Amino acid sequence: MFNFDFYNPTRILFGQGRVADIDKHIPPHAKVLVLYGGGSVKATGTLKEVLTALNQRQVLEFGGIEPNPSYETLMQAVDIVKTQQIDFLLAVGGGSVIDGTKFVAAASVYDGDARDILKTRGTVIKKALPFGSVLTLSATGSEMNNGGVVTQKSTQTKSAFFSVHTFPQFSVLDPTKTYTLPTRQIANGVVDAFVHITEQYLTYPVNALVQDRFAEGLLLSLIEIGEQALHHPQDYDTRANLMWIATLALNGLIGAGVPQDWSTHMIGHELTALYGIDHARTLAIVLPAMLSVRKEAKQDKLLQFAQRVWQINEGTEQQKIALAIAKTREFFERLGVDTSLSAYNISAEHIDNIINQLQNHKMTALGEKREVNLDVCRQVLTQCL
Amino acid sequence: MFNFDFYNPTRILFGQGRVADIDKHIPPHAKVLVLYGGGSVKATGTLKEVLTALNQRQVLEFGGIEPNPSYETLMQAVDIVKTQQIDFLLAVGGGSVIDGTKFVAAASVYDGDARDILKTRGTVIKKALPFGSVLTLSATGSEMNNGGVVTQKSTQTKSAFFSVHTFPQFSVLDPTKTYTLPTRQIANGVVDAFVHITEQYLTYPVNALVQDRFAEGLLLSLIEIGEQALHHPQDYDTRANLMWIATLALNGLIGAGVPQDWSTHMIGHELTALYGIDHARTLAIVLPAMLSVRKEAKQDKLLQFAQRVWQINEGTEQQKIALAIAKTREFFERLGVDTSLSAYNISAEHIDNIINQLQNHKMTALGEKREVNLDVCRQVLTQCL
Repeated sequence: MFNFDFYNPTRILFGQGRVADIDKHIPPHAKVLVLYGGGSVKATGTLKEVLTALNQRQVLEFGGIEPNPSYETLMQAVDIVKTQQIDFLLAVGGGSVIDGTKFVAAASVYDGDARDILKTRGTVIKKALPFGSVLTLSATGSEMNNGGVVTQKSTQTKSAFFSVHTFPQFSVLDPTKTYTLPTRQIANGVVDAFVHITEQYLTYPVNALVQDRFAEGLLLSLIEIGEQALHHPQDYDTRANLMWIATLALNGLIGAGVPQDWSTHMIGHELTALYGIDHARTLAIVLPAMLSVRKEAKQDKLLQFAQRVWQINEGTEQQKIALAIAKTREFFERLGVDTSLSAYNISAEHIDNIINQLQNHKMTALGEKREVNLDVCRQVLTQCL
Repeated sequence: MFNFDFYNPTRILFGQGRVADIDKHIPPHAKVLVLYGGGSVKATGTLKEVLTALNQRQVLEFGGIEPNPSYETLMQAVDIVKTQQIDFLLAVGGGSVIDGTKFVAAASVYDGDARDILKTRGTVIKKALPFGSVLTLSATGSEMNNGGVVTQKSTQTKSAFFSVHTFPQFSVLDPTKTYTLPTRQIANGVVDAFVHITEQYLTYPVNALVQDRFAEGLLLSLIEIGEQALHHPQDYDTRANLMWIATLALNGLIGAGVPQDWSTHMIGHELTALYGIDHARTLAIVLPAMLSVRKEAKQDKLLQFAQRVWQINEGTEQQKIALAIAKTREFFERLGVDTSLSAYNISAEHIDNIINQLQNHKMTALGEKREVNLDVCRQVLTQCL
C-alpha cells in the first residue's frame, strides 16, 4: 500500500426531507447565493423547498449553470458574489452545478485572473467562500470531494482543479430529489460512478485489501441496482443506494493508497469538448477499449475484477479478461448507453483531431504508469470506432 | 436505508515515516501536552521521534495512562493542562491513550464536575481542546472517531461518551509502529475490529447495499490477514491493512444508515470492569453466544454473513448459521483468544454479579431492537460458560 493522506470534512445529510436541516449548517447572518442549472429545480419544487428552509435570510439566486459548466457563465456569478457581498454559496443541482459553485467559491476571493485556477489545477487557491450543496443527481461525486471541472468555451478546454479549500461544508443527499430525472441522466450517473471506481481500481495490485474490497463492493452494488434505478424511478432504496454509491465512488476513500489511472476520463473530456457527447457517455465508449488495449499492464487487477465482480471462474486468463470487458460493455448497453464512437457518427477521420486536442492539452503521458502516450490513445480510439 | 448524518473531519496521515509531518498540522506557537501510556513509546523510540518532530515547540509530557483509562488518572492530566495553559494535546499510543486524551480535551475546558461528561454520554461537551494522535496499536478505531470510554475506578464503571468536538484533528497511522507489539495485543486488535464490524452489520436488513458490502469487505480482509499479522510482525502490508481495517471498522462509515447492536460490547464492558479481562477478549467470549441466542432476530443477516463472509453455501438455513458462528469462534481461537468464561475461571455462580452490574448501569434494553433485556443477557452469559 502506498502512503496517503485522507481528509474529507464534508458533512453528509442523507435521506428524505433533509433539505429542512440546511439552515443550521450555514453561519448565522450569512448572505447566501443559491446557484442552479437550467430550471428543473424550479419545476420540481426543490428550489422552493430550499428557499423555504432559508426563509429568515438574505438570499440571491443565480440560475443557468450549464452541463459542463463554463468559465464564461461562472464569472457572471463571481461578479454577483463580489458586488452583492455574498458570504455563503449553496449549489442546488448535480455535479455541474456543484463543480461550478466550487469554482465560484475560489474565484470570488482570488486576487488575479481566475483562469489561473484552471491553469494550475487549483494550486493557486489559498482560500474560498464556504459553500454547501443540495444534490439532485447521482453521478459525479462532487458533493463530497474537493474537485471540479470547468470548460473554457473559447478554447474548448475542460480543466480540472482541486483544493483543500473547496470541499462542500455540507451536502444534502435526498434520494427522492432524483425521482423525476430523465432516464438518460440516471443511466449516465450509473456509468459515471462505475468508471470513477474502475479508474481507481483497475491498475496494478499494491496489496491494498480494503480499497479493493470497497471498490468491488461499490461495483457489485451498482451492477445489482443499475437497471432497477432506470425502470423503477420511485423505488426509494434503489435511488438511495445509487446516491450513496456515486458519492463514495469519488470521495477519496477507495483511491487512498493505491495507483490511479484517469486516462479514460482525459480522453472522454476531449470527446465532450469537441463533439458535445455527455460526459458519462464518453466514458462508456472509452473504458472497454482502454481496458482491452491495456490488458497486459492491468492483467492482475482485470483477473480479480473478472472473478470478484463478474463471478467469472472458467476459462483461460485471457478468456476471463475478455469476458469481463464484454460484460462491462453489455452492462452499459443494457442501460441504454452506447459504447462506440460510430453511434455518435464519429469515424476514423476524426481521430487526428482528438489526438491533436490531447496533445494541445499536454495529455501525452496518462495512466497509472504514465504509459498511455498518444500512440496508445490512438489505438484506444481506433478500438472505440 | 435509514436517514443518517455522516461527518468525519479527522485527517489521516498514513504510512511509514509520517510522524515527521505532524508539526505542520498543529497550530503555530501552540503549547503541546504529549500523552502516553506505560512507557513502551519510550522503549520503541516513538516518543523520541514525536518530540523530534515537535522540536521548535514548548512541549510537556504526561505518561501513565492505563489500559481502560481511568477518570482518576486523566484528571491529573486535566490539572496540568489548566495550570500549564496547554493549547494542543497529542496522544501517542493505542485506543486507551486516545480515548483518555479525548476526555482530557473536553474536561479541561468544561465548567463543572467533569464526571458530567461520563454521566451524560458527552452531551454536555460544548467545546474541547484540539488534539491529534500518533497511533501505535490497531484496534479501537478511536484515531478516527469522536468517542471514548473511560473507567471510574471508584465505582467499577466504564462509560462511553461522544461529541462532535472530540474528533482528532489528525491521526498518524504508521504501520511500522506496531512491529514490536506483543502478539497478544495484535490478536486483541483483530478481535476488537471484527466485533466492531459485526455490531454494525449483524442486525436486520434495511437494504443498505454499500454498508453491507463494506462491512463484509472489512471482515473478509481481517480473516485473510488476522493470523499473518500475528506470525509475521514485520510484514508491512499486513500490518498496514490491519491498521486501515481497524480504523474503518469504527469511523462511522459502515454504521451510517443501518441499525446497530452494541450489546456484546456492553456485556463485555462489565466483564472488564469486574474481572479485568482485556476488552477484546470479553468480546470474543460474548459474541458467539450472543449470535447464537439471537439467531432468530438476526436470521437474515446471519445467512448473508454465512454466505458472503464464510462462503457457506451448503446445508439448511439453521446449519449455515450454526456453522458461521462456529467459524467465527474458531477464528478467534486460532488467534489465541479464548471464547469462554471458564478460560478465565468465571463460572455460573458469577452470573448474578454480572447481571447486577448491567442493571446498575441501566443496561436493560440492549440490541438493535432493544430486545436484549437482563433475561437475554443471562441466557447469553450461560452460553458463554
